[in-house]
Amino acid sequence: MSFRASILTLYPEMFPGPLGVSLAGRALERGDVALETVQIRDFGVGRHRMVDDTPSGGGAGMVMRADVLAAAIDHAAPAGDTRPRLLMSPRGRPLDQRRVRELAVGEGAVIVCGRFEGVDERVIAGRGLEEVSIGDYILSGGEIAALVLLDAVVRLLPGVMGNALSGEAESFEAGLLEHPHYTRPAEWEGQTIPAVLTSGDHGAVERWRRAEAERITAARRPDLLKR
Amino acid sequence: MSFRASILTLYPEMFPGPLGVSLAGRALERGDVALETVQIRDFGVGRHRMVDDTPSGGGAGMVMRADVLAAAIDHAAPAGDTRPRLLMSPRGRPLDQRRVRELAVGEGAVIVCGRFEGVDERVIAGRGLEEVSIGDYILSGGEIAALVLLDAVVRLLPGVMGNALSGEAESFEAGLLEHPHYTRPAEWEGQTIPAVLTSGDHGAVERWRRAEAERITAARRPDLLKR
Repeated sequence: MSFRASILTLYPEMFPGPLGVSLAGRALERGDVALETVQIRDFGVGRHRMVDDTPSGGGAGMVMRADVLAAAIDHAAPAGDTRPRLLMSPRGRPLDQRRVRELAVGEGAVIVCGRFEGVDERVIAGRGLEEVSIGDYILSGGEIAALVLLDAVVRLLPGVMGNALSGEAESFEAGLLEHPHYTRPAEWEGQTIPAVLTSGDHGAVERWRRAEAERITAARRPDLLKR
Repeated sequence: MSFRASILTLYPEMFPGPLGVSLAGRALERGDVALETVQIRDFGVGRHRMVDDTPSGGGAGMVMRADVLAAAIDHAAPAGDTRPRLLMSPRGRPLDQRRVRELAVGEGAVIVCGRFEGVDERVIAGRGLEEVSIGDYILSGGEIAALVLLDAVVRLLPGVMGNALSGEAESFEAGLLEHPHYTRPAEWEGQTIPAVLTSGDHGAVERWRRAEAERITAARRPDLLKR
């Protein structure tokens, strides 16, 4: 069964974009993942296919209309479609690797790319949207956030990365940042590779990597250790 | 003066990608932002232009070579180039709107898209790379993370968004999530717009928005209030 993503956007030409290249691109070609875009404007109001309007109460920017977005969602995910419905939004729950993993074992996702400031609040509850944030910064729209989420999910799908994932459980996925990496040449600009890594003592290598991962996490991201 | 980004990548065809569309696309056309890609493989070793090798100490995946990456960086940013040098990496400092704003008032950035697991540690100190993370999840590479960073920066450049940014200082940028938004129609599926927003009392609207922003932030992201 493939992972099926329906992306609601005003800019369908942004997809698959960078996902069409490299590992995700091959997964798309093989059909391990299916991307469908839905142009929100097709559900716009009136002759001008209006999708947004000025904010109630005044202020800058425009707000995407609840009725328009609901019609687009109902088209992309008719009754019986049980895929999670995600709204990319800086107000959402921060995306983490655990949520990525949950999504990757599911059947897909409906992903709404609204204007980043401004989707009518009523459609969020009205259509059961889960707000997802990729980080504490503001983008011009939800599209690039959707690309981030999809890239993170697709690389976890069976067959996409081969066995390259095997090391992950020990580091970042377990709540630690990765230990340092080294490769040839043995010496570069006077800097050598830590001797333990070329000792051939696999137990010592593992202990060093674990200790380094803990040291780096404590120094850079003590918040991860607390979780 | 325009913002000049040099992106070091094995996949230059991923750029400008989604940045070629919409507001960022127009900023690129006008020359408010200049994107240059550098193919890391052009600096690879030997007949096969090798850019990575197996990790010292064993394990899955491949590690990008320090000498290769350093040569690409030295090409993109010769002596005297004072732009910050960013390495997109989940081990980095989490990107936030403050760092985005700092970058946006600068002259540009050199952005290294390494393999996500595995850049030889020595090149990070050796070339003064600042590790930047866009969130606590793993991508297939740094390219989509670079697109995120660039989109966040470009929308802050003078002239790109017009006056649409004026509301931001009061909400997310001040460490709060945004208040709810509403627009026409006044009633949708039995749900109305909060009466205060259509009262015409601007002071009351502002107080309601501030209180809602604080309430939502406290409920969803108490970590933001502590900072």
